Amino acid sequence: MKIHEYNGFPGPRRVRMFLAEKGIDSIEFEQVDVPAGEHRKDTFLSKNPYGTVPVLETADGQYISETVAICRYFEDVHPEPALMGDTPQKKAEIEMWQRRVEQTMYDTIATYFHQGTPGLGELETYQNAEWGHKNKERYEDALIRMDQHLEGKQYIAGDAYSVADITALCAIGYAGFVNMAIPPELENLTRWHSDVSSRPSAAA
Amino acid sequence: MKIHEYNGFPGPRRVRMFLAEKGIDSIEFEQVDVPAGEHRKDTFLSKNPYGTVPVLETADGQYISETVAICRYFEDVHPEPALMGDTPQKKAEIEMWQRRVEQTMYDTIATYFHQGTPGLGELETYQNAEWGHKNKERYEDALIRMDQHLEGKQYIAGDAYSVADITALCAIGYAGFVNMAIPPELENLTRWHSDVSSRPSAAA
Repeated sequence: MKIHEYNGFPGPRRVRMFLAEKGIDSIEFEQVDVPAGEHRKDTFLSKNPYGTVPVLETADGQYISETVAICRYFEDVHPEPALMGDTPQKKAEIEMWQRRVEQTMYDTIATYFHQGTPGLGELETYQNAEWGHKNKERYEDALIRMDQHLEGKQYIAGDAYSVADITALCAIGYAGFVNMAIPPELENLTRWHSDVSSRPSAAA
Repeated sequence: MKIHEYNGFPGPRRVRMFLAEKGIDSIEFEQVDVPAGEHRKDTFLSKNPYGTVPVLETADGQYISETVAICRYFEDVHPEPALMGDTPQKKAEIEMWQRRVEQTMYDTIATYFHQGTPGLGELETYQNAEWGHKNKERYEDALIRMDQHLEGKQYIAGDAYSVADITALCAIGYAGFVNMAIPPELENLTRWHSDVSSRPSAAA
């Protein structure tokens, strides 16, 4: 199996962390030069017509794109440790939190980066700076809300580390890339961030 | 079990259709007056601090929000017919398509509605009309792409009806609410739409 990606980008990092938590180290990685626009060329579009990385190429030659769909595949073929829950209730709770984190933290900081930062060249063909900056505010609001949620909790979705923690850590890493740090007064979030950053998977 | 929702809105419709396809008719529905702002009041925020409908209240009094998380719960406790796949490969493929449809069709038309249509009152506290209209274009582009994908295919994700079809049908219904119809030259999409609209679940 092979993953087509651009190492260092936050979407690919979500999958790399997921694999690291599972202890899966048998996957080959092939780089797609996204900053040079390779994701908009026919060779890549034949693997994913929607033009996003990462893309999983399975052993039988099928292509799966969308970060969480790729994670789901590995959760199914390699269930331990469970990162998406092991009961109907836990699965739903983790999916709820994964989507909340994705929408309020990950998508907002991505929108700020793509729409609100000038000079992205081939990465972005349309920008709406006001919308970009509005999403910076939405990201900041989401951190405050997450800090409140983490009061007395070790992880985001229940008692165990999960894909929701991965998405949040990658969102905060994304924000670091545009020079936004966690405000120090958000003590619960800071404590959680320090904790999950110390896991080996954070370096994946 | 009970679902807190606003009947007629597209998010709640996704869950209603999912339940109808499963043949689950034992759920109680309680209405939240979203147009009057009830989703921003403490009673509702105690169930879902993120303020969205629908919210599932389970038998043991826990609350699950996020449409797809609620669907996942019912998929697990009532697996037949499978709407999210029954093998690792199919699960990943359906999740990939569900997310593609959600991002390119559902989220775009929602953004056009929320940001691009004036006079929404309590429903929307911020609007960026240019971004709204950009998303109308993105929705239109997504329909063309989906029409191409549906060439020779009965359903969106593989051989069986799935949650990806539900999301797409609800997106197109959402577009109808803002007076946007499927362009008649998109013959594959029109044929698919006619087919899935004839299922009893479409009236849920």
